[in-house]
Amino acid sequence: MSLGEFELIEQYFRRPAEVRRAARGDVPLGIGDDAAVLAPPPGRHLVAALDTLVEGHHFVPGSPPESIAHRALAVNLSDLAAMGAEPAWFLLSLTLPRADETFLERFARGLLDLAETHQVALVGGDTTAGPLAIAVQALGTIAPDVALTRSGGRAGDLVFVSGTPGESAGGLRLVLDADAGAHLDAGQRRRLIDRFHFPTPRVALGQALVGIASACVDVSDGLADDAGRLARFSGCGLRIDVERLPHSAELVALAGEAGARRLVLTGGEDCELCFTVPRERAAELAARLDNVKCQVTCIGELTGEGGLQLHDHGVPVQIDTAGYDHFARPGSSGKT
Amino acid sequence: MSLGEFELIEQYFRRPAEVRRAARGDVPLGIGDDAAVLAPPPGRHLVAALDTLVEGHHFVPGSPPESIAHRALAVNLSDLAAMGAEPAWFLLSLTLPRADETFLERFARGLLDLAETHQVALVGGDTTAGPLAIAVQALGTIAPDVALTRSGGRAGDLVFVSGTPGESAGGLRLVLDADAGAHLDAGQRRRLIDRFHFPTPRVALGQALVGIASACVDVSDGLADDAGRLARFSGCGLRIDVERLPHSAELVALAGEAGARRLVLTGGEDCELCFTVPRERAAELAARLDNVKCQVTCIGELTGEGGLQLHDHGVPVQIDTAGYDHFARPGSSGKT
Repeated sequence: MSLGEFELIEQYFRRPAEVRRAARGDVPLGIGDDAAVLAPPPGRHLVAALDTLVEGHHFVPGSPPESIAHRALAVNLSDLAAMGAEPAWFLLSLTLPRADETFLERFARGLLDLAETHQVALVGGDTTAGPLAIAVQALGTIAPDVALTRSGGRAGDLVFVSGTPGESAGGLRLVLDADAGAHLDAGQRRRLIDRFHFPTPRVALGQALVGIASACVDVSDGLADDAGRLARFSGCGLRIDVERLPHSAELVALAGEAGARRLVLTGGEDCELCFTVPRERAAELAARLDNVKCQVTCIGELTGEGGLQLHDHGVPVQIDTAGYDHFARPGSSGKT
Repeated sequence: MSLGEFELIEQYFRRPAEVRRAARGDVPLGIGDDAAVLAPPPGRHLVAALDTLVEGHHFVPGSPPESIAHRALAVNLSDLAAMGAEPAWFLLSLTLPRADETFLERFARGLLDLAETHQVALVGGDTTAGPLAIAVQALGTIAPDVALTRSGGRAGDLVFVSGTPGESAGGLRLVLDADAGAHLDAGQRRRLIDRFHFPTPRVALGQALVGIASACVDVSDGLADDAGRLARFSGCGLRIDVERLPHSAELVALAGEAGARRLVLTGGEDCELCFTVPRERAAELAARLDNVKCQVTCIGELTGEGGLQLHDHGVPVQIDTAGYDHFARPGSSGKT
């Protein structure tokens, strides 16, 4: 492998990024200098996230390079989405054991495909030698004083979740265990594995929620855990009506009704959003979502009491909903 | 080790960062949500850098945690300095094999000490489990259209370097080899090792160079290599007068005259700046530097011809000045 660092960068990331830069028009200086220069739109605030994916912790060794890149950018776009921000630019720090041309070509494709989808420009970063890890820093913009936070919920607010969380965790199970889901058909397998490899950050949804959601959080550590965090930051309790949880036929096929329910509550890395809306604005929410291609489900409400309560058709039930912790077991990204 | 991720973050990074946040007044939302919200000053552009340090590649296993943290932030501040930017905020992604309280306490101290020196606020990031690595993303601001680049030099411009490059590489030699420099006194050893562990990013110098330097680059891969890169990006050749290179008595004590010269030309990770100034503005440069506590040395000039020429009192000389490449041998950070 004779590619030097600068050639490597040039070959895989520079050209497509320049196309993006031109497309955005707000990158006075992109890849190739000590740092990037960016021209933020007047009157907007910045929203900044930095998340790292580490081989063996956030992705399985031997994962498709397109998926590794996609997920590294997706989790950061999801962080911006949870604030209601419009993504603009990102930087990439790629740590690689060696400069593998095939890996780099496929990695760059996965990265730039997702970047194009959301019109976000790769503007800089670095490459270094070491155990495979990818840090992405995403920058977006938002109007002042309207960013969604974890702490704005009030007792009585309805709790919603986007998409069908748990499918990513189901896909991971299939990836890790060749014997799992032997009874699934090819389409079911593909759906779940794709949801793990290529989760969809809810960028448009996050922006549509600005001005109507009272609080919002990215579901990275599992729905119960992240929704519980939103409730705690909001000084509320939380009731989840488990019979209302989004239904994934593929997840039920994989794990059965009870297993699927548990995956919905605890599976991380879906890039879904969990958010709260004051009850009297629920109709307005529905109208806004007409323009956002994303399923949204009401799963419960914030309560005055502390803690998480799970109800099934109004009856309290017990389900183990422990979330991920990096220093307890491998899982997803946490925020400082 | 029972500290969960969120407790860990809270304990070591959250409180001091809130102090910083209050001090800056331009962080509407800092650590603790999915992303940070920042209020850039009106009419300024952003400058963004992302560099990762990996154990065994950028720092020696067992390095003082204060040093690891300092260097991770310093190399990014140095990138901003090379653009002439005023640093404002940074994000930290910390990948750790386990949550070691002593390490974290010392790491946080090193990080926040340097952050305070430059009034830059830690506003977010993540922690994750994995092989020790630190990604820092630094954000600064600058007036539009004045950022220093690598490409603005012209033939005839004088070439300068700050400080005494090579000392960091000398310190690394002492750190790696207990038998090296046995003849040095304690003060000499301390000086070189400190320069490796705690390099000084030239933040004030970078800002002072705006409007007068024609090009600027951060010396991360070695002076000859980075100055050569500046010349190449500027479409010029470069003559370095080796007899004018900054003299470090400690480096000469360690490596002899010839060895010191080679370390000055090839040693990386000093956080020094190499820049060019049109000859007719040299007097103006001197006036500006009155307010910047930093030695600056003229070491040569940009030439019309391609390539790097080394002269010693006007006579061409040959010195091996190969720079670092991560995928050739361990070294410093390169930019995408």
